[in-house]
Amino acid sequence: MTDATAFAHSLTRTAAAVNAMLDSLLPPVKEAEGRVVDAMRYAALDGGKRLRPFLVCASAELFNVPGVQALRAAAALEMIHCYSLVHDDLPAMDDDDLRRGRPTVHKAYDEATAILAGDGLLTMAFEVLADPATHPDGAIRAALVTELAKASGAAGMVGGQMIDLQAPKLSLDEAGLVRLQSLKTGALIACACRFGAVLAGASEQAKAHLWDYGQKIGLAFQIADDVLDVESSAQVTGKATGKDAVAGKATFVSRLGLEGAKTQARALVEQAIEHVEIFGVAADPLRAAAAFVIRRQA
Amino acid sequence: MTDATAFAHSLTRTAAAVNAMLDSLLPPVKEAEGRVVDAMRYAALDGGKRLRPFLVCASAELFNVPGVQALRAAAALEMIHCYSLVHDDLPAMDDDDLRRGRPTVHKAYDEATAILAGDGLLTMAFEVLADPATHPDGAIRAALVTELAKASGAAGMVGGQMIDLQAPKLSLDEAGLVRLQSLKTGALIACACRFGAVLAGASEQAKAHLWDYGQKIGLAFQIADDVLDVESSAQVTGKATGKDAVAGKATFVSRLGLEGAKTQARALVEQAIEHVEIFGVAADPLRAAAAFVIRRQA
Repeated sequence: MTDATAFAHSLTRTAAAVNAMLDSLLPPVKEAEGRVVDAMRYAALDGGKRLRPFLVCASAELFNVPGVQALRAAAALEMIHCYSLVHDDLPAMDDDDLRRGRPTVHKAYDEATAILAGDGLLTMAFEVLADPATHPDGAIRAALVTELAKASGAAGMVGGQMIDLQAPKLSLDEAGLVRLQSLKTGALIACACRFGAVLAGASEQAKAHLWDYGQKIGLAFQIADDVLDVESSAQVTGKATGKDAVAGKATFVSRLGLEGAKTQARALVEQAIEHVEIFGVAADPLRAAAAFVIRRQA
Repeated sequence: MTDATAFAHSLTRTAAAVNAMLDSLLPPVKEAEGRVVDAMRYAALDGGKRLRPFLVCASAELFNVPGVQALRAAAALEMIHCYSLVHDDLPAMDDDDLRRGRPTVHKAYDEATAILAGDGLLTMAFEVLADPATHPDGAIRAALVTELAKASGAAGMVGGQMIDLQAPKLSLDEAGLVRLQSLKTGALIACACRFGAVLAGASEQAKAHLWDYGQKIGLAFQIADDVLDVESSAQVTGKATGKDAVAGKATFVSRLGLEGAKTQARALVEQAIEHVEIFGVAADPLRAAAAFVIRRQA
Protein backbone atom coordinates (compact mmCIF):
# COMPACT_ATOMS: atom_id res chain seq x y z
CA MET A 1 0.00 0.00 0.00
CA THR A 2 1.52 3.35 -1.00
CA ASP A 3 1.55 6.28 1.41
CA ALA A 4 -1.13 7.97 -0.68
CA THR A 5 -3.38 4.91 -0.55
CA ALA A 6 -2.84 4.50 3.18
CA PHE A 7 -3.73 8.16 3.64
CA ALA A 8 -6.87 7.78 1.52
CA HIS A 9 -7.99 4.82 3.66
CA SER A 10 -7.30 6.77 6.82
CA LEU A 11 -9.25 9.79 5.53
CA THR A 12 -12.22 7.58 4.62
CA ARG A 13 -12.17 5.90 8.04
CA THR A 14 -12.17 9.25 9.86
CA ALA A 15 -14.94 10.54 7.58
CA ALA A 16 -17.13 7.55 8.48
CA ALA A 17 -16.52 8.09 12.19
CA VAL A 18 -17.25 11.83 12.05
CA ASN A 19 -20.35 11.20 9.93
CA ALA A 20 -21.64 8.82 12.60
CA MET A 21 -20.88 11.41 15.29
CA LEU A 22 -22.67 14.18 13.33
CA ASP A 23 -25.61 11.86 12.77
CA SER A 24 -25.89 11.15 16.52
CA LEU A 25 -25.47 14.83 17.45
CA LEU A 26 -28.23 15.86 15.02
CA PRO A 27 -31.15 13.52 15.65
CA PRO A 28 -34.21 14.14 13.43
CA VAL A 29 -37.03 16.13 15.04
CA LYS A 30 -40.70 15.49 14.30
CA GLU A 31 -42.23 18.83 15.37
CA ALA A 32 -42.65 21.77 12.96
CA GLU A 33 -39.12 23.02 13.71
CA GLY A 34 -37.91 19.65 12.39
CA ARG A 35 -37.65 21.29 8.97
CA VAL A 36 -34.59 23.27 10.06
CA VAL A 37 -33.05 20.18 11.67
CA ASP A 38 -33.61 18.24 8.43
CA ALA A 39 -31.83 21.02 6.55
CA MET A 40 -28.99 21.01 9.09
CA ARG A 41 -28.63 17.24 8.60
CA TYR A 42 -28.75 17.66 4.81
CA ALA A 43 -25.95 20.24 5.05
CA ALA A 44 -23.81 18.40 7.57
CA LEU A 45 -24.15 14.85 6.23
CA ASP A 46 -23.16 15.69 2.68
CA GLY A 47 -20.39 13.25 1.88
CA GLY A 48 -17.49 15.69 2.03
CA LYS A 49 -13.92 14.45 2.39
CA ARG A 50 -13.85 15.64 6.03
CA LEU A 51 -10.32 17.00 5.79
CA ARG A 52 -10.78 19.27 8.81
CA PRO A 53 -12.09 16.45 11.06
CA PHE A 54 -9.15 14.35 9.89
CA LEU A 55 -6.76 17.11 10.99
CA VAL A 56 -8.45 17.34 14.41
CA CYS A 57 -8.15 13.59 14.90
CA ALA A 58 -4.57 13.44 13.60
CA SER A 59 -3.46 16.25 15.90
CA ALA A 60 -5.32 14.63 18.82
CA GLU A 61 -3.45 11.37 18.20
CA LEU A 62 -0.14 13.20 18.67
CA PHE A 63 -1.13 13.61 22.32
CA ASN A 64 -3.12 10.40 22.85
CA VAL A 65 -6.38 12.33 23.32
CA PRO A 66 -9.33 9.90 23.75
CA GLY A 67 -11.02 9.25 20.43
CA VAL A 68 -14.49 10.41 21.47
CA GLN A 69 -13.14 13.79 22.58
CA ALA A 70 -11.38 14.24 19.25
CA LEU A 71 -14.45 13.16 17.27
CA ARG A 72 -16.78 15.52 19.14
CA ALA A 73 -14.39 18.43 18.62
CA ALA A 74 -14.00 17.39 14.98
CA ALA A 75 -17.77 17.25 14.48
CA ALA A 76 -18.20 20.69 16.04
CA LEU A 77 -15.54 22.21 13.80
CA GLU A 78 -17.07 20.51 10.76
CA MET A 79 -20.46 22.04 11.65
CA ILE A 80 -18.81 25.45 11.28
CA HIS A 81 -17.37 24.46 7.91
CA CYS A 82 -20.77 23.15 6.76
CA TYR A 83 -22.68 26.24 7.94
CA SER A 84 -20.21 28.44 6.05
CA LEU A 85 -20.88 26.49 2.84
CA VAL A 86 -24.66 26.85 3.29
CA HIS A 87 -24.43 30.61 3.77
CA ASP A 88 -21.76 31.09 1.05
CA ASP A 89 -24.00 29.27 -1.45
CA LEU A 90 -26.95 31.65 -0.86
CA PRO A 91 -28.14 33.81 -3.77
CA ALA A 92 -26.90 36.96 -2.02
CA MET A 93 -23.43 35.45 -1.69
CA ASP A 94 -21.94 33.07 -4.30
CA ASP A 95 -25.37 32.00 -5.64
CA ASP A 96 -24.56 28.32 -6.21
CA ASP A 97 -27.29 25.81 -7.07
CA LEU A 98 -25.16 22.69 -6.71
CA ARG A 99 -22.59 21.43 -4.24
CA ARG A 100 -20.94 18.05 -4.64
CA GLY A 101 -23.55 17.22 -7.27
CA ARG A 102 -26.53 17.82 -4.99
CA PRO A 103 -28.84 20.84 -4.85
CA THR A 104 -27.54 23.38 -2.31
CA VAL A 105 -29.59 23.78 0.88
CA HIS A 106 -31.54 26.82 -0.34
CA LYS A 107 -32.43 24.88 -3.51
CA ALA A 108 -33.38 21.67 -1.68
CA TYR A 109 -35.37 23.64 0.95
CA ASP A 110 -35.66 27.43 0.56
CA GLU A 111 -33.58 30.49 1.35
CA ALA A 112 -35.09 31.18 4.76
CA THR A 113 -34.56 27.57 5.84
CA ALA A 114 -30.97 27.68 4.56
CA ILE A 115 -30.19 30.83 6.54
CA LEU A 116 -31.69 29.25 9.68
CA ALA A 117 -29.96 25.89 9.09
CA GLY A 118 -26.62 27.71 8.88
CA ASP A 119 -27.41 29.61 12.07
CA GLY A 120 -28.44 26.35 13.74
CA LEU A 121 -25.22 24.53 12.79
CA LEU A 122 -23.09 27.51 13.85
CA THR A 123 -24.82 27.59 17.23
CA MET A 124 -24.68 23.85 17.73
CA ALA A 125 -20.93 23.73 17.12
CA PHE A 126 -20.42 25.69 20.34
CA GLU A 127 -23.01 23.65 22.21
CA VAL A 128 -21.08 20.48 21.34
CA LEU A 129 -17.73 21.94 22.43
CA ALA A 130 -19.13 23.23 25.74
CA ASP A 131 -20.66 19.86 26.63
CA PRO A 132 -18.80 17.97 29.41
CA ALA A 133 -18.79 14.92 27.10
CA THR A 134 -16.23 16.76 24.97
CA HIS A 135 -13.76 17.22 27.85
CA PRO A 136 -14.06 16.89 31.64
CA ASP A 137 -12.14 20.15 32.23
CA GLY A 138 -14.33 23.25 31.79
CA ALA A 139 -11.33 25.47 31.09
CA ILE A 140 -10.42 23.26 28.13
CA ARG A 141 -14.00 23.28 26.84
CA ALA A 142 -14.00 27.07 27.07
CA ALA A 143 -10.61 27.20 25.31
CA LEU A 144 -12.02 25.14 22.43
CA VAL A 145 -14.91 27.61 22.15
CA THR A 146 -12.48 30.55 22.15
CA GLU A 147 -10.26 29.00 19.47
CA LEU A 148 -13.16 28.08 17.20
CA ALA A 149 -14.91 31.43 17.62
CA LYS A 150 -11.75 33.40 16.81
CA ALA A 151 -10.99 31.22 13.78
CA SER A 152 -14.50 31.43 12.38
CA GLY A 153 -15.65 34.96 13.27
CA ALA A 154 -14.98 38.42 11.88
CA ALA A 155 -11.25 38.12 12.65
CA GLY A 156 -11.19 34.78 10.78
CA MET A 157 -13.47 33.02 8.31
CA VAL A 158 -16.33 35.56 8.30
CA GLY A 159 -13.83 38.39 7.79
CA GLY A 160 -12.16 36.45 4.98
CA GLN A 161 -15.48 35.94 3.23
CA MET A 162 -16.16 39.68 3.59
CA ILE A 163 -12.84 40.45 1.87
CA ASP A 164 -13.53 37.82 -0.81
CA LEU A 165 -16.88 39.41 -1.67
CA GLN A 166 -15.06 42.70 -2.25
CA ALA A 167 -12.12 41.04 -4.05
CA PRO A 168 -13.11 42.02 -7.62
CA LYS A 169 -12.64 45.69 -6.75
CA LEU A 170 -9.67 45.27 -4.38
CA SER A 171 -7.14 44.04 -6.98
CA LEU A 172 -5.19 42.19 -4.29
CA ASP A 173 -1.45 41.64 -4.61
CA GLU A 174 0.17 38.38 -3.47
CA ALA A 175 0.34 39.52 0.17
CA GLY A 176 -3.32 40.54 0.03
CA LEU A 177 -4.29 37.15 -1.42
CA VAL A 178 -2.31 35.37 1.30
CA ARG A 179 -4.08 37.41 3.97
CA LEU A 180 -7.51 36.78 2.40
CA GLN A 181 -6.96 33.01 2.28
CA SER A 182 -5.37 32.95 5.71
CA LEU A 183 -8.62 34.36 7.11
CA LYS A 184 -11.16 32.70 4.80
CA THR A 185 -9.90 29.11 4.84
CA GLY A 186 -6.56 29.06 6.68
CA ALA A 187 -7.86 30.00 10.11
CA LEU A 188 -10.37 27.15 10.36
CA ILE A 189 -7.89 24.58 9.00
CA ALA A 190 -5.24 25.82 11.43
CA CYS A 191 -7.79 25.71 14.24
CA ALA A 192 -8.50 22.06 13.36
CA CYS A 193 -4.78 21.33 13.64
CA ARG A 194 -4.54 23.04 17.04
CA PHE A 195 -7.63 21.35 18.47
CA GLY A 196 -5.75 18.16 19.40
CA ALA A 197 -3.19 20.21 21.33
CA VAL A 198 -5.92 22.24 23.02
CA LEU A 199 -7.77 19.07 24.06
CA ALA A 200 -4.52 17.75 25.50
CA GLY A 201 -3.61 20.98 27.27
CA ALA A 202 -0.33 20.84 25.31
CA SER A 203 2.37 23.55 25.36
CA GLU A 204 2.00 26.90 23.62
CA GLN A 205 4.95 25.87 21.44
CA ALA A 206 3.14 22.73 20.23
CA LYS A 207 -0.01 24.76 19.54
CA ALA A 208 1.96 27.40 17.63
CA HIS A 209 3.65 24.78 15.44
CA LEU A 210 0.33 23.13 14.67
CA TRP A 211 -1.22 26.50 13.83
CA ASP A 212 1.64 27.29 11.44
CA TYR A 213 1.41 23.82 9.91
CA GLY A 214 -2.31 24.38 9.38
CA GLN A 215 -1.90 27.84 7.85
CA LYS A 216 0.74 26.51 5.43
CA ILE A 217 -1.35 23.56 4.25
CA GLY A 218 -4.43 25.76 4.09
CA LEU A 219 -2.64 28.17 1.79
CA ALA A 220 -1.15 25.33 -0.27
CA PHE A 221 -4.69 23.89 -0.58
CA GLN A 222 -5.99 27.22 -1.89
CA ILE A 223 -3.14 27.68 -4.37
CA ALA A 224 -3.73 24.12 -5.59
CA ASP A 225 -7.39 25.05 -6.00
CA ASP A 226 -6.50 28.06 -8.16
CA VAL A 227 -4.21 25.85 -10.26
CA LEU A 228 -6.93 23.21 -10.62
CA ASP A 229 -9.45 25.90 -11.57
CA VAL A 230 -7.24 27.10 -14.43
CA GLU A 231 -6.15 23.64 -15.60
CA SER A 232 -9.69 22.25 -15.62
CA SER A 233 -10.98 25.39 -17.39
CA ALA A 234 -8.24 24.92 -19.98
CA GLN A 235 -9.44 21.37 -20.63
CA VAL A 236 -13.02 22.56 -21.13
CA THR A 237 -12.60 25.93 -22.86
CA GLY A 238 -9.11 25.73 -24.30
CA LYS A 239 -8.23 28.92 -22.41
CA ALA A 240 -6.14 28.91 -19.23
CA THR A 241 -8.53 31.23 -17.39
CA GLY A 242 -10.34 30.08 -14.26
CA LYS A 243 -13.73 31.30 -13.07
CA ASP A 244 -12.20 33.55 -10.39
CA ALA A 245 -10.13 35.33 -13.03
CA VAL A 246 -13.26 35.68 -15.19
CA ALA A 247 -15.04 37.21 -12.16
CA GLY A 248 -12.26 39.81 -12.02
CA LYS A 249 -10.65 38.37 -8.90
CA ALA A 250 -6.90 38.15 -8.52
CA THR A 251 -5.74 34.55 -8.00
CA PHE A 252 -2.43 32.96 -7.11
CA VAL A 253 -2.12 31.87 -10.74
CA SER A 254 -2.76 35.40 -12.03
CA ARG A 255 -0.20 36.75 -9.54
CA LEU A 256 2.46 34.00 -9.68
CA GLY A 257 1.86 32.29 -13.03
CA LEU A 258 0.91 28.62 -13.33
CA GLU A 259 4.40 27.23 -12.66
CA GLY A 260 5.09 29.81 -9.98
CA ALA A 261 1.90 28.83 -8.17
CA LYS A 262 2.76 25.12 -8.31
CA THR A 263 6.26 25.81 -6.98
CA GLN A 264 4.84 27.94 -4.19
CA ALA A 265 2.33 25.26 -3.17
CA ARG A 266 5.10 22.64 -2.99
CA ALA A 267 7.28 24.99 -0.93
CA LEU A 268 4.40 25.57 1.52
CA VAL A 269 3.90 21.82 1.94
CA GLU A 270 7.60 21.44 2.78
CA GLN A 271 7.40 24.28 5.29
CA ALA A 272 4.29 22.75 6.82
CA ILE A 273 6.07 19.43 7.26
CA GLU A 274 8.98 21.18 9.02
CA HIS A 275 6.53 22.54 11.59
CA VAL A 276 5.52 19.03 12.69
CA GLU A 277 9.13 17.73 12.81
CA ILE A 278 9.09 18.05 16.61
CA PHE A 279 6.39 15.38 16.87
CA GLY A 280 8.48 12.67 15.18
CA VAL A 281 6.85 9.70 13.48
CA ALA A 282 3.56 10.35 15.31
CA ALA A 283 3.09 13.20 12.83
CA ASP A 284 3.15 10.93 9.77
CA PRO A 285 -0.62 11.35 9.21
CA LEU A 286 -0.10 15.13 9.18
CA ARG A 287 2.77 14.72 6.69
CA ALA A 288 0.49 12.63 4.48
CA ALA A 289 -2.28 15.25 4.78
CA ALA A 290 0.15 17.99 3.70
CA ALA A 291 1.10 16.02 0.61
CA PHE A 292 -2.59 15.32 -0.08
CA VAL A 293 -3.71 18.95 -0.24
CA ILE A 294 -1.63 19.63 -3.37
CA ARG A 295 -1.81 16.18 -4.93
CA ARG A 296 -5.16 17.10 -6.51
CA GLN A 297 -3.34 19.47 -8.88
CA ALA A 298 -1.33 16.76 -10.58
CA MET B 1 -40.59 58.66 41.78
CA THR B 2 -43.11 55.93 40.85
CA ASP B 3 -42.04 52.31 40.47
CA ALA B 4 -42.52 52.61 36.73
CA THR B 5 -40.30 55.70 36.54
CA ALA B 6 -37.65 54.08 38.72
CA PHE B 7 -37.73 51.03 36.47
CA ALA B 8 -37.42 53.19 33.35
CA HIS B 9 -34.35 54.92 34.84
CA SER B 10 -32.84 51.58 35.75
CA LEU B 11 -33.46 50.20 32.26
CA THR B 12 -31.83 53.25 30.69
CA ARG B 13 -28.82 52.99 32.99
CA THR B 14 -28.28 49.30 32.12
CA ALA B 15 -28.73 50.06 28.42
CA ALA B 16 -25.98 52.69 28.59
CA ALA B 17 -23.63 50.27 30.37
CA VAL B 18 -24.28 47.42 27.94
CA ASN B 19 -23.91 49.77 24.97
CA ALA B 20 -20.49 50.81 26.27
CA MET B 21 -19.55 47.15 26.74
CA LEU B 22 -20.70 46.25 23.20
CA ASP B 23 -18.79 49.23 21.84
CA SER B 24 -15.59 48.09 23.54
CA LEU B 25 -16.06 44.45 22.49
CA LEU B 26 -16.56 45.47 18.84
CA PRO B 27 -13.76 47.90 18.02
CA PRO B 28 -13.81 49.25 14.44
CA VAL B 29 -11.42 47.53 12.00
CA LYS B 30 -9.66 49.38 9.18
CA GLU B 31 -8.81 46.47 6.85
CA ALA B 32 -11.18 45.28 4.09
CA GLU B 33 -13.00 42.96 6.50
CA GLY B 34 -13.85 46.08 8.49
CA ARG B 35 -17.05 46.31 6.45
CA VAL B 36 -18.53 43.34 8.28
CA VAL B 37 -17.40 44.74 11.64
CA ASP B 38 -19.04 48.07 10.77
CA ALA B 39 -22.26 46.20 9.99
CA MET B 40 -21.98 44.24 13.25
CA ARG B 41 -21.59 47.52 15.14
CA TYR B 42 -24.52 49.04 13.24
CA ALA B 43 -26.67 46.06 14.21
CA ALA B 44 -25.53 45.81 17.82
CA LEU B 45 -25.42 49.51 18.71
CA ASP B 46 -28.93 50.28 17.56
CA GLY B 47 -30.55 51.98 20.52
CA GLY B 48 -32.80 49.12 21.61
CA LYS B 49 -34.31 49.05 25.09
CA ARG B 50 -31.88 46.26 26.11
CA LEU B 51 -34.50 44.33 28.05
CA ARG B 52 -32.49 41.09 27.87
CA PRO B 53 -29.28 42.68 29.21
CA PHE B 54 -31.38 44.24 31.97
CA LEU B 55 -32.65 40.79 32.92
CA VAL B 56 -29.11 39.37 32.97
CA CYS B 57 -27.94 42.20 35.23
CA ALA B 58 -31.00 42.01 37.48
CA SER B 59 -30.61 38.26 37.95
CA ALA B 60 -26.86 38.68 38.55
CA GLU B 61 -27.60 41.22 41.28
CA LEU B 62 -29.67 38.61 43.13
CA PHE B 63 -26.39 36.75 43.73
CA ASN B 64 -23.98 39.71 43.99
CA VAL B 65 -22.21 38.72 40.79
CA PRO B 66 -19.51 41.30 39.89
CA GLY B 67 -20.89 43.91 37.49
CA VAL B 68 -18.34 43.33 34.73
CA GLN B 69 -19.17 39.62 34.59
CA ALA B 70 -22.87 40.38 34.29
CA LEU B 71 -22.29 43.05 31.63
CA ARG B 72 -20.09 40.79 29.51
CA ALA B 73 -22.66 37.98 29.70
CA ALA B 74 -25.41 40.51 28.95
CA ALA B 75 -23.52 41.86 25.93
CA ALA B 76 -22.97 38.34 24.59
CA LEU B 77 -26.65 37.45 24.93
CA GLU B 78 -27.64 40.75 23.30
CA MET B 79 -25.34 39.92 20.34
CA ILE B 80 -27.49 36.82 19.79
CA HIS B 81 -30.66 38.90 19.94
CA CYS B 82 -29.19 41.44 17.48
CA TYR B 83 -27.96 38.78 15.04
CA SER B 84 -31.44 37.24 15.05
CA LEU B 85 -32.98 40.59 14.12
CA VAL B 86 -30.49 41.05 11.25
CA HIS B 87 -31.25 37.61 9.81
CA ASP B 88 -35.02 37.85 10.45
CA ASP B 89 -35.14 41.16 8.57
CA LEU B 90 -33.56 39.65 5.41
CA PRO B 91 -35.66 39.58 2.21
CA ALA B 92 -35.86 35.76 2.37
CA MET B 93 -37.27 35.95 5.91
CA ASP B 94 -39.53 38.83 7.08
CA ASP B 95 -38.23 41.27 4.41
CA ASP B 96 -38.20 44.42 6.56
CA ASP B 97 -36.59 47.64 5.34
CA LEU B 98 -36.77 49.51 8.62
CA ARG B 99 -36.07 48.68 12.25
CA ARG B 100 -36.48 51.28 14.98
CA GLY B 101 -36.73 53.94 12.28
CA ARG B 102 -33.37 53.10 10.69
CA PRO B 103 -32.68 51.11 7.51
CA THR B 104 -32.17 47.42 8.36
CA VAL B 105 -28.62 46.07 7.95
CA HIS B 106 -29.21 44.64 4.47
CA LYS B 107 -30.60 48.01 3.38
CA ALA B 108 -27.79 50.07 4.99
CA TYR B 109 -25.15 47.64 3.62
CA ASP B 110 -26.25 44.74 1.40
CA GLU B 111 -27.66 41.26 1.85
CA ALA B 112 -24.33 39.42 1.82
CA THR B 113 -22.89 41.78 4.43
CA ALA B 114 -26.02 41.39 6.56
CA ILE B 115 -25.77 37.59 6.48
CA LEU B 116 -22.09 37.77 7.44
CA ALA B 117 -22.69 40.41 10.13
CA GLY B 118 -25.29 38.13 11.71
CA ASP B 119 -22.88 35.20 11.56
CA GLY B 120 -20.15 37.38 13.05
CA LEU B 121 -22.31 38.53 15.99
CA LEU B 122 -23.53 34.98 16.62
CA THR B 123 -19.94 33.71 16.69
CA MET B 124 -18.66 36.56 18.83
CA ALA B 125 -21.31 35.98 21.49
CA PHE B 126 -19.66 32.64 22.30
CA GLU B 127 -16.17 34.13 22.11
CA VAL B 128 -17.15 36.70 24.74
CA LEU B 129 -18.68 34.08 27.06
CA ALA B 130 -15.66 31.76 26.79
CA ASP B 131 -13.19 34.54 27.62
CA PRO B 132 -11.69 34.29 31.13
CA ALA B 133 -12.66 37.95 31.65
CA THR B 134 -16.30 36.78 31.81
CA HIS B 135 -15.65 34.37 34.69
CA PRO B 136 -12.51 32.88 36.24
CA ASP B 137 -14.03 29.37 36.37
CA GLY B 138 -13.87 27.57 33.01
CA ALA B 139 -16.76 25.27 33.92
CA ILE B 140 -18.99 28.30 34.43
CA ARG B 141 -17.86 29.86 31.15
CA ALA B 142 -18.67 26.58 29.40
CA ALA B 143 -22.05 26.44 31.17
CA LEU B 144 -22.88 29.93 29.88
CA VAL B 145 -22.03 28.74 26.35
CA THR B 146 -24.22 25.66 26.78
CA GLU B 147 -27.18 27.67 28.08
CA LEU B 148 -26.98 30.29 25.36
CA ALA B 149 -26.49 27.75 22.57
CA LYS B 150 -29.47 25.67 23.69
CA ALA B 151 -31.69 28.76 24.03
CA SER B 152 -30.73 30.18 20.65
CA GLY B 153 -30.30 27.09 18.45
CA ALA B 154 -32.66 24.71 16.68
CA ALA B 155 -34.20 23.62 20.01
CA GLY B 156 -34.79 27.29 20.87
CA MET B 157 -34.88 30.56 18.95
CA VAL B 158 -33.86 29.19 15.52
CA GLY B 159 -36.46 26.42 15.84
CA GLY B 160 -39.08 28.97 16.86
CA GLN B 161 -38.34 31.10 13.82
CA MET B 162 -38.62 27.98 11.65
CA ILE B 163 -42.10 27.32 13.08
CA ASP B 164 -43.07 30.98 12.69
CA LEU B 165 -42.16 30.95 9.00
CA GLN B 166 -44.55 28.01 8.54
CA ALA B 167 -47.23 29.50 10.83
CA PRO B 168 -49.63 30.67 8.08
CA LYS B 169 -50.20 27.07 7.02
CA LEU B 170 -50.01 25.48 10.51
CA SER B 171 -53.18 27.09 11.94
CA LEU B 172 -51.79 26.83 15.47
CA ASP B 173 -54.10 26.45 18.47
CA GLU B 174 -53.33 28.21 21.76
CA ALA B 175 -50.93 25.45 22.89
CA GLY B 176 -49.16 25.62 19.54
CA LEU B 177 -48.82 29.41 19.83
CA VAL B 178 -47.44 29.08 23.35
CA ARG B 179 -44.87 26.55 22.15
CA LEU B 180 -43.89 28.72 19.17
CA GLN B 181 -43.34 31.77 21.36
CA SER B 182 -41.63 29.75 24.05
CA LEU B 183 -39.00 28.75 21.48
CA LYS B 184 -38.85 31.90 19.37
CA THR B 185 -38.62 34.56 22.08
CA GLY B 186 -39.17 32.85 25.45
CA ALA B 187 -36.03 30.73 25.47
CA LEU B 188 -33.61 33.65 25.03
CA ILE B 189 -35.45 35.81 27.59
CA ALA B 190 -35.48 32.90 30.04
CA CYS B 191 -31.78 32.30 29.35
CA ALA B 192 -31.09 35.96 30.21
CA CYS B 193 -32.89 35.46 33.52
CA ARG B 194 -30.87 32.33 34.31
CA PHE B 195 -27.51 33.86 33.38
CA GLY B 196 -27.09 35.58 36.75
CA ALA B 197 -27.66 32.27 38.53
CA VAL B 198 -25.27 30.46 36.19
CA LEU B 199 -22.56 33.10 36.75
CA ALA B 200 -23.05 32.66 40.51
CA GLY B 201 -23.07 28.87 40.39
CA ALA B 202 -26.47 29.05 42.13
CA SER B 203 -28.72 26.07 42.90
CA GLU B 204 -30.70 24.22 40.24
CA GLN B 205 -33.83 25.37 42.09
CA ALA B 206 -32.89 29.03 41.70
CA LYS B 207 -32.07 28.49 38.02
CA ALA B 208 -35.39 26.70 37.44
CA HIS B 209 -37.39 29.51 39.06
CA LEU B 210 -35.57 32.13 36.98
CA TRP B 211 -36.19 30.11 33.81
CA ASP B 212 -39.90 29.87 34.61
CA TYR B 213 -40.04 33.57 35.46
CA GLY B 214 -38.39 34.33 32.11
CA GLN B 215 -40.70 32.06 30.11
CA LYS B 216 -43.76 33.67 31.75
CA ILE B 217 -42.69 37.25 31.09
CA GLY B 218 -41.55 36.27 27.58
CA LEU B 219 -45.00 34.93 26.81
CA ALA B 220 -46.72 37.92 28.45
CA PHE B 221 -44.50 40.17 26.31
CA GLN B 222 -45.60 38.36 23.15
CA ILE B 223 -49.28 38.43 24.05
CA ALA B 224 -48.97 42.16 24.82
CA ASP B 225 -47.36 42.53 21.38
CA ASP B 226 -50.34 40.84 19.70
CA VAL B 227 -52.70 43.11 21.65
CA LEU B 228 -50.70 46.19 20.69
CA ASP B 229 -50.65 45.07 17.06
CA VAL B 230 -54.45 44.85 16.98
CA GLU B 231 -55.12 48.03 18.98
CA SER B 232 -52.68 50.13 16.95
CA SER B 233 -54.09 48.72 13.70
CA ALA B 234 -57.58 49.61 14.94
CA GLN B 235 -56.46 53.21 15.48
CA VAL B 236 -55.03 53.40 11.96
CA THR B 237 -57.46 51.30 9.92
CA GLY B 238 -60.58 51.24 12.06
CA LYS B 239 -60.45 47.44 11.96
CA ALA B 240 -59.26 45.37 14.90
CA THR B 241 -57.04 43.17 12.71
CA GLY B 242 -53.27 43.12 13.21
CA LYS B 243 -50.70 42.42 10.51
CA ASP B 244 -50.12 38.85 11.72
CA ALA B 245 -53.82 38.08 11.31
CA VAL B 246 -53.71 39.65 7.85
CA ALA B 247 -50.73 37.40 7.04
CA GLY B 248 -52.93 34.42 7.95
CA LYS B 249 -51.12 33.68 11.20
CA ALA B 250 -52.98 32.70 14.34
CA THR B 251 -52.33 35.14 17.19
CA PHE B 252 -53.17 35.17 20.87
CA VAL B 253 -55.86 37.75 20.10
CA SER B 254 -57.38 35.59 17.36
CA ARG B 255 -57.33 32.59 19.71
CA LEU B 256 -58.30 34.25 23.02
CA GLY B 257 -60.06 37.46 21.97
CA LEU B 258 -58.80 40.91 22.91
CA GLU B 259 -59.98 40.83 26.51
CA GLY B 260 -59.00 37.20 26.94
CA ALA B 261 -55.48 37.99 25.74
CA LYS B 262 -55.14 40.93 28.13
CA THR B 263 -56.36 38.80 31.03
CA GLN B 264 -53.92 36.04 30.10
CA ALA B 265 -50.98 38.46 29.93
CA ARG B 266 -51.80 39.83 33.38
CA ALA B 267 -52.09 36.30 34.79
CA LEU B 268 -48.69 35.38 33.35
CA VAL B 269 -47.09 38.43 34.96
CA GLU B 270 -48.53 37.40 38.32
CA GLN B 271 -47.23 33.85 37.86
CA ALA B 272 -43.82 35.19 36.88
CA ILE B 273 -43.68 37.30 40.03
CA GLU B 274 -44.49 34.24 42.15
CA HIS B 275 -41.44 32.49 40.71
CA VAL B 276 -39.09 35.16 42.11
CA GLU B 277 -40.78 35.25 45.54
CA ILE B 278 -37.93 33.13 46.98
CA PHE B 279 -35.45 35.95 46.32
CA GLY B 280 -37.28 38.49 48.53
CA VAL B 281 -36.85 42.23 48.00
CA ALA B 282 -33.69 41.66 45.94
CA ALA B 283 -36.05 40.60 43.14
CA ASP B 284 -37.84 43.96 42.99
CA PRO B 285 -36.15 44.86 39.65
CA LEU B 286 -37.46 41.57 38.21
CA ARG B 287 -40.96 42.39 39.55
CA ALA B 288 -40.76 45.79 37.87
CA ALA B 289 -39.58 44.18 34.62
CA ALA B 290 -42.54 41.77 34.70
CA ALA B 291 -44.97 44.67 35.04
CA PHE B 292 -43.14 46.55 32.29
CA VAL B 293 -43.53 43.88 29.60
CA ILE B 294 -47.31 44.29 29.52
CA ARG B 295 -47.53 47.97 30.39
CA ARG B 296 -47.01 48.85 26.72
CA GLN B 297 -50.50 47.56 25.97
CA ALA B 298 -52.25 50.18 28.12
